[in-house]
Amino acid sequence: MKSSPDPVFSENASPVDVGRAGGLIVIEKEPVNLEMPFGTVDRFLTPNERFYVRCHFPIPKINAKKWRLKIGGAVRKPLTLSLADLRAMKALTTTSLLECAGNNRVFLIPKVKGAQWSLGAVGNAEWTGVLLADLLQQAGVKDGVLEVVLEGADEGEVKEQPKPSGKFHYARSLPLQKAQSDVLLAYEMNGEPLPESHGAPLRAIVPGWYGMAAVKWLTHILVTKEPFHGFYQTIEYTRWERPRKSLPMQVPLSEVPVKAQISRPELGQVVPAGEKIWVQGTAWTADSEITKVEVSDDWGKNWKRADLLGKPVRNAWQLWEYQWLTPKKRGKQVLMVKATDARGREQPYERDADRGTYNISHCLPIEVEVR
Amino acid sequence: MKSSPDPVFSENASPVDVGRAGGLIVIEKEPVNLEMPFGTVDRFLTPNERFYVRCHFPIPKINAKKWRLKIGGAVRKPLTLSLADLRAMKALTTTSLLECAGNNRVFLIPKVKGAQWSLGAVGNAEWTGVLLADLLQQAGVKDGVLEVVLEGADEGEVKEQPKPSGKFHYARSLPLQKAQSDVLLAYEMNGEPLPESHGAPLRAIVPGWYGMAAVKWLTHILVTKEPFHGFYQTIEYTRWERPRKSLPMQVPLSEVPVKAQISRPELGQVVPAGEKIWVQGTAWTADSEITKVEVSDDWGKNWKRADLLGKPVRNAWQLWEYQWLTPKKRGKQVLMVKATDARGREQPYERDADRGTYNISHCLPIEVEVR
Repeated sequence: MKSSPDPVFSENASPVDVGRAGGLIVIEKEPVNLEMPFGTVDRFLTPNERFYVRCHFPIPKINAKKWRLKIGGAVRKPLTLSLADLRAMKALTTTSLLECAGNNRVFLIPKVKGAQWSLGAVGNAEWTGVLLADLLQQAGVKDGVLEVVLEGADEGEVKEQPKPSGKFHYARSLPLQKAQSDVLLAYEMNGEPLPESHGAPLRAIVPGWYGMAAVKWLTHILVTKEPFHGFYQTIEYTRWERPRKSLPMQVPLSEVPVKAQISRPELGQVVPAGEKIWVQGTAWTADSEITKVEVSDDWGKNWKRADLLGKPVRNAWQLWEYQWLTPKKRGKQVLMVKATDARGREQPYERDADRGTYNISHCLPIEVEVR
Repeated sequence: MKSSPDPVFSENASPVDVGRAGGLIVIEKEPVNLEMPFGTVDRFLTPNERFYVRCHFPIPKINAKKWRLKIGGAVRKPLTLSLADLRAMKALTTTSLLECAGNNRVFLIPKVKGAQWSLGAVGNAEWTGVLLADLLQQAGVKDGVLEVVLEGADEGEVKEQPKPSGKFHYARSLPLQKAQSDVLLAYEMNGEPLPESHGAPLRAIVPGWYGMAAVKWLTHILVTKEPFHGFYQTIEYTRWERPRKSLPMQVPLSEVPVKAQISRPELGQVVPAGEKIWVQGTAWTADSEITKVEVSDDWGKNWKRADLLGKPVRNAWQLWEYQWLTPKKRGKQVLMVKATDARGREQPYERDADRGTYNISHCLPIEVEVR
């Protein structure tokens, strides 16, 4: 299956132009932040050109021939690898969803800071590359290692305090256990070379985790015995948990929570009164399978079961649909959807404010117009 | 020695009124943040009424008779203690400086967020109370403990993300080793009952550390095997360190760095041309003694040695003075001062931007008018 139309742009086309051609919505132009119109979801794999793009800093210019990946820190044998070295290793292909931790932010009232993503900072793709675990084994992880820091070539400055001075690189850490399991270092996306805006030549894919862990333009892997307290680990991409009500503690975001989204009808769409129409969308969870998707048209009083389409793929999304008999009465109508996974985790009805500006997984009201 | 004038206010007087009577400068009214005019320093101990007041939330109303201190978490025998219980224990008196981690913030260009302290968010007092180490021994610290969290009765909300939702308490943690050494839980200040605005009935005194660790209105001590990632530990009161230039890491503030300040002449003061005048001030460092204070009137090209006054007291400040022959030429003149401690640590000439909005210890230009 060819997932996308033929490229119509030259190699020098800007990612914003490429994104616009793919139908992406420009959320921010510099750094490039592009959203998929979620109403266009019609298949299991999201075409590369229609995949949301999240950048923290300008996209770095990388010469793939000169590019090297360095693995160092608490290892017995530090490694420096070219793309050819990586392509010569055992390749693995895995399907994994990527969701931005700020996806759905536009639904929060009052408005919170950050890019105002609607429903489309999420996509599902097939990634090909090498297992991080294989590289860590080659390098020989020393005793007492706690974390593995992934660092990208992208760099820039942030404005608001608390912040490091001057330019610094995007970096994120993983607990050693996750780094040694299913984390992929990908050089292909949906069977094509990884696009520049998605982290070429190499990006991490961390199945089940929010996209912030899927570090793009990877250059350094630092194996460390100390917890990593970088900017995107302690200031951005965190939330609060409370061992006791008075004592909130900040924790870095990791896994995506169980969640379903409605792709059709779209927000504000006009639907015919008293007719059967399809409500459709996707649902996902971390390290488990979606077992149930339910739809409500009465603000959560009653829920009707939707059909799950296709086989469940762990850490990918699952398409679903539900035949809705629209009300005879004309006017505004709110649809909601709720997912449950095989571990019994259920999407919450209400927002937990301790999740701050991220980690939005409560039931979103999709208002349509019955006419 | 009586350190302060007789109280002129009733028990219900507001801390702002009391502070104003002591000559304090109101930096913020709610929460109460009051600064000592640093030009008034004329003795080793700072009178209670002239001691700077730093609050994060409104001053809590506490009934000292009903108040209890709870010690729990990873201990064999959790404790609940009244003020009488604490007063019945072995008392210790120690002299310790307190400096707010944001002291001198008004000197930063460009301006950074936070209370705009000048030179006087610092003071030196004699504290009486019990050793935290004695309480920890009574409670029996379990194996594997990492930190001790100090929690105050003061609570409130913060506005800017990232932040916990709703109200939460002020809390700060100490590594177990520090908690088991010289940390005092004080109920007296300069021989008088601890004033309400300084944390009555009980506040921590953490010698050598910035004031943010000296938690006021103490109610809970949590002994923990996990690192504490509270708001004032990970968002406020932190700075950046760099194992590698591209990889800044956030660290909680702890010890005060070596530093001297000029109390007289004051900023903008008029001094006579071609005459000998006294330049005076205080100097301090953590866990060491001040060995040298030097004054420069030519932007650090030449430094002249000042006299240290009195014996050094570890973790307290040291008064110093220098007889300056003012220039014959009239006009603006900048004075600077620099301290060195017994560990060879020297006050830096320039600001390190990775210290963010805190930890200001570089040489400050005190501009005077020679006339």
